[in-house]
Amino acid sequence: MGTAEQRLSEEAQYCADTFNGAIASAAISAAWEIGLLDELERAGRVGIAEFSATAGADPGVVRALLVALSSRRIVTLGPERTEAATGAGFADAYRTKGFFYWLTRGCGELLTTLPAKVLEHDREGDFVRRDSRAISVACRNIARTFFDPPLRKLLETVECTTVADLGCGSSDRLIMLADLMPETRGIGIDVAAGAITVSKEAIAAAGMEDRIALVQDDVLNLSPRDEYADVDLLTCFLMGHDFWPRDNAVTTLRRLRETFPNAKNLVIGDTCRSTGVHGPEHGMFTLGFETVHTVMDQYIPTLDEWSSVLEESGWRIADRRMIDLPAFSFIYRLTPA
Amino acid sequence: MGTAEQRLSEEAQYCADTFNGAIASAAISAAWEIGLLDELERAGRVGIAEFSATAGADPGVVRALLVALSSRRIVTLGPERTEAATGAGFADAYRTKGFFYWLTRGCGELLTTLPAKVLEHDREGDFVRRDSRAISVACRNIARTFFDPPLRKLLETVECTTVADLGCGSSDRLIMLADLMPETRGIGIDVAAGAITVSKEAIAAAGMEDRIALVQDDVLNLSPRDEYADVDLLTCFLMGHDFWPRDNAVTTLRRLRETFPNAKNLVIGDTCRSTGVHGPEHGMFTLGFETVHTVMDQYIPTLDEWSSVLEESGWRIADRRMIDLPAFSFIYRLTPA
Repeated sequence: MGTAEQRLSEEAQYCADTFNGAIASAAISAAWEIGLLDELERAGRVGIAEFSATAGADPGVVRALLVALSSRRIVTLGPERTEAATGAGFADAYRTKGFFYWLTRGCGELLTTLPAKVLEHDREGDFVRRDSRAISVACRNIARTFFDPPLRKLLETVECTTVADLGCGSSDRLIMLADLMPETRGIGIDVAAGAITVSKEAIAAAGMEDRIALVQDDVLNLSPRDEYADVDLLTCFLMGHDFWPRDNAVTTLRRLRETFPNAKNLVIGDTCRSTGVHGPEHGMFTLGFETVHTVMDQYIPTLDEWSSVLEESGWRIADRRMIDLPAFSFIYRLTPA
Repeated sequence: MGTAEQRLSEEAQYCADTFNGAIASAAISAAWEIGLLDELERAGRVGIAEFSATAGADPGVVRALLVALSSRRIVTLGPERTEAATGAGFADAYRTKGFFYWLTRGCGELLTTLPAKVLEHDREGDFVRRDSRAISVACRNIARTFFDPPLRKLLETVECTTVADLGCGSSDRLIMLADLMPETRGIGIDVAAGAITVSKEAIAAAGMEDRIALVQDDVLNLSPRDEYADVDLLTCFLMGHDFWPRDNAVTTLRRLRETFPNAKNLVIGDTCRSTGVHGPEHGMFTLGFETVHTVMDQYIPTLDEWSSVLEESGWRIADRRMIDLPAFSFIYRLTPA
């Protein structure tokens, strides 16, 4: 019979690893959401009974999550399965938890119903639903972990009195920037009413109501306002691909010059479509980002396509940081051409 | 920047493989449902434009599915990404597609919402939804591929006039048995109205209305009926774990003796809880089967627990087949003790 003693063929185990990857990915999201991943990061180990009692969690399900994580080396379970410790894969999984959460919690329904999103007659109307709360939580974590550190570095040489963040989401970045530059005022711009609500709470919690204002406005279709006149720094993260297709991207970037006539810097960061990646070489996030946007029929430009658009955009590249993770990601500091 | 040229650390790629496994698993289900997997099995290759035109599929999404499959070696894409061919992992993925479909299409919502199924206060009422159509399609494929061949072998020495299949589902197995034993009559028993409806259609399509009858009845709570009196062979597949916990299993098995007083054989096949499997050793299905049933709070017995129950069940083991895939699976032929 098929027992642990019996070794699977290499290909059969590789196939099982694919299957187990789906379960472990969901388990990472669950372990993060209930605080299990943070407890493992903090203490290096966790007792199932103790953790479950504190968190109000079902111990059997907590054990099942840990077994799923162990299948991908994220934790190792003790011999009695009463406790777990961080494994060889923990550091990478912890660092990239935002991508897993984006995929399984934010885009899980898209994956579940993927078979019904391929045929043309299924691809009509509002055929994709994502969990916008989960996407927002995931993107905040991704931005903090991978984009904020190089952004802070890049802003060391930039002076500004008023920063506007385009597509501000939860205003997490604006609050970080206001912390970083104590003399600076901020304006958060987002088209989503939900983002404005969440931002209000976050700004109040940070005690920054007097320094950060909010405007519900569509970044893809802006026109000048009195409050935009003072803005000398623009930031825009993880939404640049929404500017596309190409003609729209040129128009949107040019219009920023008119909408913010005193902007001296536009700092834009985003992830591009991969090039030259084949089969099992796909690193973290790339395949998820591209699969999901293809299903949603949203174009993702390559880095070369971005460069070509910038040449016509009314802006020129003053500085840049290329980002390793997520791959094919950039932060450009642009100045008026 | 992070390009294909730059090699990820081994652990970082292992972590990315976990993430990519979630996408590839959903892509296997989608590729099977739209006929792409069968076309690859038939022809060994597929042209994206041709397949999409024939299937009425979006070519960009078909390409995205193939890229996802390529990330796990199931296919390889041509240099222009206009066609794909079966890869080193194709045979295993094709053979086990029913497990992927069970997991991502049947239990996808459970995985998406897994973070909200761990805390006790979330685990009340009807907190798990699965796609019963997808589960039924998946289980039919799993039974046909992995359980029917040893079942046929095991029945070579068995004579019967009337077979009753407990938890008959789509009646796929009953139709197979009626084909195998042309002199035999069949009775399909299932508690689900949907199963009875699907069965009626399948039996009519097979032209077997005069040989196979259907009874909507709860296998966990049967009592004698006139039509049960003639049954001399009972079959029961992939539902034995529903008999548990232990006391219920003993009661249910004993009651089968009374309900079917002329049964000379009970052939029961199911998958057990694994023992002695640790971390990355988890083979196909085991982790999914156990995670899902733990979340649903449904007990899965081990093989030893089954053996111990059989000793008290009023039946004794006359013959058995152990099954390698899914691991920890058995078919017992039992006779009245």
